[in-house]
Amino acid sequence: MRDIAVFSGSAHPELAEEICGNLGVPLLPVKIDRFANDCLQVQLEANCRERDVFLIQPLVKPVQEHLVELLLMLDAARGASAGRVTVVMPHYSYARSDKKDASRISIGGRLVADLMVTAGADRVLTMTLHSPQVHGFFSVPVDHLHALHELARHFRQYDLSTTTVVSPDLGNAKEAAHFARLLGAKVAAGAKQRYADDRVEITSIIGEITGRDVIVLDDEIARGSTVLELLDRLRELGPRSIRVACTHGLFADKALARIGGQEDVLEIVCTNTVPIPTGERTDKLRVLSIAPALAEAMRRIHNGESVSSLFEPA
Amino acid sequence: MRDIAVFSGSAHPELAEEICGNLGVPLLPVKIDRFANDCLQVQLEANCRERDVFLIQPLVKPVQEHLVELLLMLDAARGASAGRVTVVMPHYSYARSDKKDASRISIGGRLVADLMVTAGADRVLTMTLHSPQVHGFFSVPVDHLHALHELARHFRQYDLSTTTVVSPDLGNAKEAAHFARLLGAKVAAGAKQRYADDRVEITSIIGEITGRDVIVLDDEIARGSTVLELLDRLRELGPRSIRVACTHGLFADKALARIGGQEDVLEIVCTNTVPIPTGERTDKLRVLSIAPALAEAMRRIHNGESVSSLFEPA
Amino acid sequence: MRDIAVFSGSAHPELAEEICGNLGVPLLPVKIDRFANDCLQVQLEANCRERDVFLIQPLVKPVQEHLVELLLMLDAARGASAGRVTVVMPHYSYARSDKKDASRISIGGRLVADLMVTAGADRVLTMTLHSPQVHGFFSVPVDHLHALHELARHFRQYDLSTTTVVSPDLGNAKEAAHFARLLGAKVAAGAKQRYADDRVEITSIIGEITGRDVIVLDDEIARGSTVLELLDRLRELGPRSIRVACTHGLFADKALARIGGQEDVLEIVCTNTVPIPTGERTDKLRVLSIAPALAEAMRRIHNGESVSSLFEPA
Amino acid sequence: MRDIAVFSGSAHPELAEEICGNLGVPLLPVKIDRFANDCLQVQLEANCRERDVFLIQPLVKPVQEHLVELLLMLDAARGASAGRVTVVMPHYSYARSDKKDASRISIGGRLVADLMVTAGADRVLTMTLHSPQVHGFFSVPVDHLHALHELARHFRQYDLSTTTVVSPDLGNAKEAAHFARLLGAKVAAGAKQRYADDRVEITSIIGEITGRDVIVLDDEIARGSTVLELLDRLRELGPRSIRVACTHGLFADKALARIGGQEDVLEIVCTNTVPIPTGERTDKLRVLSIAPALAEAMRRIHNGESVSSLFEPA
Amino acid sequence: MRDIAVFSGSAHPELAEEICGNLGVPLLPVKIDRFANDCLQVQLEANCRERDVFLIQPLVKPVQEHLVELLLMLDAARGASAGRVTVVMPHYSYARSDKKDASRISIGGRLVADLMVTAGADRVLTMTLHSPQVHGFFSVPVDHLHALHELARHFRQYDLSTTTVVSPDLGNAKEAAHFARLLGAKVAAGAKQRYADDRVEITSIIGEITGRDVIVLDDEIARGSTVLELLDRLRELGPRSIRVACTHGLFADKALARIGGQEDVLEIVCTNTVPIPTGERTDKLRVLSIAPALAEAMRRIHNGESVSSLFEPA
Amino acid sequence: MRDIAVFSGSAHPELAEEICGNLGVPLLPVKIDRFANDCLQVQLEANCRERDVFLIQPLVKPVQEHLVELLLMLDAARGASAGRVTVVMPHYSYARSDKKDASRISIGGRLVADLMVTAGADRVLTMTLHSPQVHGFFSVPVDHLHALHELARHFRQYDLSTTTVVSPDLGNAKEAAHFARLLGAKVAAGAKQRYADDRVEITSIIGEITGRDVIVLDDEIARGSTVLELLDRLRELGPRSIRVACTHGLFADKALARIGGQEDVLEIVCTNTVPIPTGERTDKLRVLSIAPALAEAMRRIHNGESVSSLFEPA
Repeated sequence: MRDIAVFSGSAHPELAEEICGNLGVPLLPVKIDRFANDCLQVQLEANCRERDVFLIQPLVKPVQEHLVELLLMLDAARGASAGRVTVVMPHYSYARSDKKDASRISIGGRLVADLMVTAGADRVLTMTLHSPQVHGFFSVPVDHLHALHELARHFRQYDLSTTTVVSPDLGNAKEAAHFARLLGAKVAAGAKQRYADDRVEITSIIGEITGRDVIVLDDEIARGSTVLELLDRLRELGPRSIRVACTHGLFADKALARIGGQEDVLEIVCTNTVPIPTGERTDKLRVLSIAPALAEAMRRIHNGESVSSLFEPA
Repeated sequence: MRDIAVFSGSAHPELAEEICGNLGVPLLPVKIDRFANDCLQVQLEANCRERDVFLIQPLVKPVQEHLVELLLMLDAARGASAGRVTVVMPHYSYARSDKKDASRISIGGRLVADLMVTAGADRVLTMTLHSPQVHGFFSVPVDHLHALHELARHFRQYDLSTTTVVSPDLGNAKEAAHFARLLGAKVAAGAKQRYADDRVEITSIIGEITGRDVIVLDDEIARGSTVLELLDRLRELGPRSIRVACTHGLFADKALARIGGQEDVLEIVCTNTVPIPTGERTDKLRVLSIAPALAEAMRRIHNGESVSSLFEPA
Repeated sequence: MRDIAVFSGSAHPELAEEICGNLGVPLLPVKIDRFANDCLQVQLEANCRERDVFLIQPLVKPVQEHLVELLLMLDAARGASAGRVTVVMPHYSYARSDKKDASRISIGGRLVADLMVTAGADRVLTMTLHSPQVHGFFSVPVDHLHALHELARHFRQYDLSTTTVVSPDLGNAKEAAHFARLLGAKVAAGAKQRYADDRVEITSIIGEITGRDVIVLDDEIARGSTVLELLDRLRELGPRSIRVACTHGLFADKALARIGGQEDVLEIVCTNTVPIPTGERTDKLRVLSIAPALAEAMRRIHNGESVSSLFEPA
Repeated sequence: MRDIAVFSGSAHPELAEEICGNLGVPLLPVKIDRFANDCLQVQLEANCRERDVFLIQPLVKPVQEHLVELLLMLDAARGASAGRVTVVMPHYSYARSDKKDASRISIGGRLVADLMVTAGADRVLTMTLHSPQVHGFFSVPVDHLHALHELARHFRQYDLSTTTVVSPDLGNAKEAAHFARLLGAKVAAGAKQRYADDRVEITSIIGEITGRDVIVLDDEIARGSTVLELLDRLRELGPRSIRVACTHGLFADKALARIGGQEDVLEIVCTNTVPIPTGERTDKLRVLSIAPALAEAMRRIHNGESVSSLFEPA
Repeated sequence: MRDIAVFSGSAHPELAEEICGNLGVPLLPVKIDRFANDCLQVQLEANCRERDVFLIQPLVKPVQEHLVELLLMLDAARGASAGRVTVVMPHYSYARSDKKDASRISIGGRLVADLMVTAGADRVLTMTLHSPQVHGFFSVPVDHLHALHELARHFRQYDLSTTTVVSPDLGNAKEAAHFARLLGAKVAAGAKQRYADDRVEITSIIGEITGRDVIVLDDEIARGSTVLELLDRLRELGPRSIRVACTHGLFADKALARIGGQEDVLEIVCTNTVPIPTGERTDKLRVLSIAPALAEAMRRIHNGESVSSLFEPA
Repeated sequence: MRDIAVFSGSAHPELAEEICGNLGVPLLPVKIDRFANDCLQVQLEANCRERDVFLIQPLVKPVQEHLVELLLMLDAARGASAGRVTVVMPHYSYARSDKKDASRISIGGRLVADLMVTAGADRVLTMTLHSPQVHGFFSVPVDHLHALHELARHFRQYDLSTTTVVSPDLGNAKEAAHFARLLGAKVAAGAKQRYADDRVEITSIIGEITGRDVIVLDDEIARGSTVLELLDRLRELGPRSIRVACTHGLFADKALARIGGQEDVLEIVCTNTVPIPTGERTDKLRVLSIAPALAEAMRRIHNGESVSSLFEPA
């Protein structure tokens, strides 16, 4: 495999620039045209022939635009005789459509995986999929990273001697337990109970909260309803402090303002898998960069070194 | 094959309703949800099992939203055990990306054809593709209709004894010649000459124009620049009257207003393959319905009758 | 599609016979030869041509033998010009291998799904997959049934006025909640907490247990360790009675004897998705038949009627 | 990728020899047997293992023999563990079957592209496809060269100060315009008008002809009818001299003799994409070699260098 | 599946006509055009939509022409929305290329099977494949008939009380044994011994020959060398009479004249899987029709009745 | 391609160790878990990324366990981003299911070939397939070795001046003839005659036996019935000595004891493609190692050197 060639779609160019900075390679130019009929056309403006091509594009809002753009980039790379094409998709939003919980619905997580392969993806590098089974939706190799080391590095600036990591959902508490081990902290979890199909409620919290420094950890925060509900339960138990952390900070519907508006929330920590508009950022927000981790994974993929040895699954 | 089942995406529900009216079957409900992370989910709200399913969705603006929506509908139909799924796509906008006229560009017309097959399309019913070669991009059977009979029916209300049909582009004049034969009219064509890759100009018109009733015919009108330039050339030759006709009325960038604003243009005629917002419609606009033609083709597809015998290629 | 044709592998012929009895069709003969080199050969001993073929084979012990046998049956049916081949697999054991929770491991749930399609499966009828995401591993349509109605019918013989359904795992409590609604009962769940990757423990139970008639509900019972641990926790809370129920009664390592040996367990209820050797059955065991449900689903699949309308997902 | 390995079918061994001479590699031997039952068998008589294999075969008369021979060579190369197989097809005759202009006809251009991929083609190197859309018929990367630089080099021996390049067909005048720019000449084009489906006629010529040195340029000349008709129109306008040029000199039905027999045609220039029997050659014929261009493209493909930077599309 | 629609390529129209006569359906017209560049184009001149299409084409000389023609017919039928396409190929000549007995050779039997599937074949009906393993080269269902019943019917006109059926090759004597059982005759076989890779010789005959009426039976006769050599051995043993029979009468290199020229050969019997030019026929030749057998198989395929019950493999 | 990485399933670890010893590389560890539900999970315990991975697994008893294990290893290697995966399968037992000699049976040889490709096999290295046509069942490249050189090396220790190699089956005598040439010996063969489909008998032996040192050679010995029957025929002809040799020593149903128990059989020679339990070995058994041959082939595959030049097909 010859040289590495990195391109970015329009979803998150800042992240792509930062990754390339870490890799010490230029971010190669891409020309994206929109025709009068609203169709897109992609041109990769650097030689791809036999190159180890990486296309960086998290599937963030507007998701459909970014998805089709990515598929066109894949088609262009394949047609340009790329040696191998890796999709670098730090946030795979369609992973949430991972099951058929109603009749005759689409399973977008599987479909989009198949579309990427049809368009020419040889492999995928992604981060913190909503459920680990989504890995199995892909027919090409997937490197599935997580951001717990980045988050842990941030929190180690604090005294962690009385810290409890809280997962909003007991079913997904494995990641929180992993994170707690990294911090030498305790773990707790909200117990979501489902009374009806459309109504899930956090009814209790398993673990030690009273008088402790709490870090709420979730894989992603979209509208933030689950976190807000969890905060209500936490307060009943008298924690000493509350911080909120997640990998994917989607922050839809003013979630950032609503969570940040909670007086007892000292800090909201997320990574830059998803771009956050400057205007929506608040004083309490800390955005950690996963660019070094992605760059290191890309370097290892290119060089044929073990990726798993660095980024053990949570 | 069991009963027919017709669904529509959100691209052009009015057309879908009209097609179903012609077929005498109900338009079945579809639920399209958009999640907080901007992902779409589709639910087909009627039994598809072993049905002959038709999904109506022209690829019109916003194209990427409608494309992904269609792909999810295909996935849902396949997962719901549809007997056969036909995409009814009266306007296939990505057909314009049909060649590689620059290095390392995507060929969207082929890619999107492959995506539809990956998502579950068994066949496609479409109308007036930008170039006839696009038919060959599909690995599933395509029924390729045209709207010349609908357009001809409209113009037969006029005295056609001194009529000339004008194609803006000699290269694509085959359709205009076909149309002229249907009307018993003469045919003419603008000669587009290309001096540089990015500059095409109509330099002359081959055929009889002076003193004649001119019908300009194109496959689609997007920004309308070609038509406006052709009108300039036509006026130099002194036609008696000018009408403009096309199959796909995209009318981007106020094209409708700009063409309609030409005083000597008596009428702009198009079909309803593309929805035209009420607010943009002008007095000079006549929108002809291709719903009966599409419905008849769907009926024949369902019944295994010859489609070509009705809709001979132009 | 012509007549239905039902064959059974050697995994569970009793279930196949019962299904055919319900359908009112004969179970057609299959000849399975084992050669001197231990290879298998399958012969379907009835005409399959253009038939709607159903192959009944739960993936039960010895799993590898039954899997290869099934793949050979699929190959034989396809080669014999079957019109459509549906795998009826009431227990899909490989569904437990659904994620990559260690480096360089196989994801058997996805692989086996692909193998069945390669061998000729057109669709799959299965029951209570270990995780709902496994549905998305299949590239062919899946009908995913559950056995809650069968279980509910059994328990309605008792006074259910003070009953609580208990899920061993809060993460998967959705099915227990569904079941509780069917019975008009309350729901509770054990909170599994994970301290280390290899150690999961039920630390507490969310919900009302004291003085109530408890029905422990799990999707499957293999070694039974989780159930036995849950019983310990339950006893601390003083239930009035305990019954244990599951869909898939695998009962490995004398699990049936060990659970049945608990004096306060009044009854162990499972279905016949998995055959239970006569010698291992105990007085406390009640095996409910899902043959009528599978037969009805097969009838509807054959006739193109809605399956979801009967067997709504839990 | 290891060493380059070049083989030739029986379509055009002279061209293959010349290419290998340019590349400085031997043309490796191929054994083609024809059995008593008229079936062919191909043996590649040199090690292909992990080699970068190139198979040279223009699809020229007898086309079917050469096509099947090529498919068998592809099969042999794949079976012999070639690292990569590139079809070098300077003339892709089936590209003319590129649309469905009648009911129930084959689209040979797409079918043959698919057959080559089925047989093992990893990529294709071709020259001057009849329509640029045919590029999109291939599901593997295509390098699409043209011969305009070779043709231009030839004509630069003449005084080009009063030269006009004439395309027989305005619709395809893009290539002629490109060629004119290379020569610093003017461009003109015949306007083909179609009165009926089966009757196309050149009715006029757009551009300056009178008193100019005319070079008629077409992509290919088969029966030569179009060129002969164009010559009639040109003569009416009084050119100073006439030369005829094309990339693919098929020259069927004595076309070479018929065009060469026109007294005012000074020269017929073509390339050697298609072999021309010695007996058919005339004094006026100049055959330019595209072997250096193909060799350079093959060298760049092998080395992963940009091909487009040398051979910009016309 | 709707009505049957039968088309024939140009390989053996007489057989196709006879099959249609037996089926009581018309042989539908096909238009095969050859362009100036020697490419073929096929048009099926009758509605195929949802029809059960059968394409009759034995792969006989010129094999490559007939193969490509067939592939184009398949493409046309698929594009024309055929419900199912069955290739009726009474003689599959490429079946002889069934193994890799030299380095880097093509395996034409497998390749051509894959090409037919790529072009659109849903199933294949063939007769007496050279080796039974070739059945496994196809990824679609194959109905593999033999002609022993037709041959037996012919020979039953004679007194068979002292008849011996002789296979030229002991390795393939299974078919001869089957045939002998049908006739109530004895069986014998030549023992081909191979001293070197390129030299096979019949060294002895196993079985009773002296004073018996011999019927030499082979699957096909091409150059006839094997039969002629066998005749030499037979004569040494003093048979009472000699007749020669085969399924596929290829008769290359005047084989018919050379075998017929043997004075003691009373009769040469073959079927019409391969057309025999009138000029080559001799008085000793008897051509039996397999049209009724093929027609009956096609009728059963169309109706979903068992084919194997009629035509048990030999 | 980066470094070689060799793993072994549980079928024949001794052979794998020996191959690795020959290659001078470590046999990398594999973890195979069996869950309570009898499902297998494979973990490759060394980095595979971009490595040239070889998975050693003959398909020996228990065949189904070893087959599924191999498929899971393939899945794991692909998921772990192996650069290329070669299955080293010295004995492909399913090759015996190579034809459809009864209605509606599976063709396991083709199916299992397809399953391996589905699971991720890029190529296969195998030895002495039961019939050479099975090579054509694979859609990926196959290197097909034989063990005749190893067997010849063993027998050269004896005086071979009066030796005859005997094939039990004339139809497959090609390999015996090749072997005889290697030894400078004569060749003979048993003539199997088939009276009925289920009864094959060796009725005579073609070639010189009396007073000669006989080596019976077969591709594999399973139950040994054919060899025992051949011995009876041989004895009638008075050979001087008898030895028995084969490539694949399956020795089912105490075949080793039964053949070894024949007093006049001096020696039974086989290779180690199939593991032979220590307890079953007898004094007369000589097991030759094909590990050096497989190692050399793997080295050449890895280095892109010709394999056929060393291991010419027999």
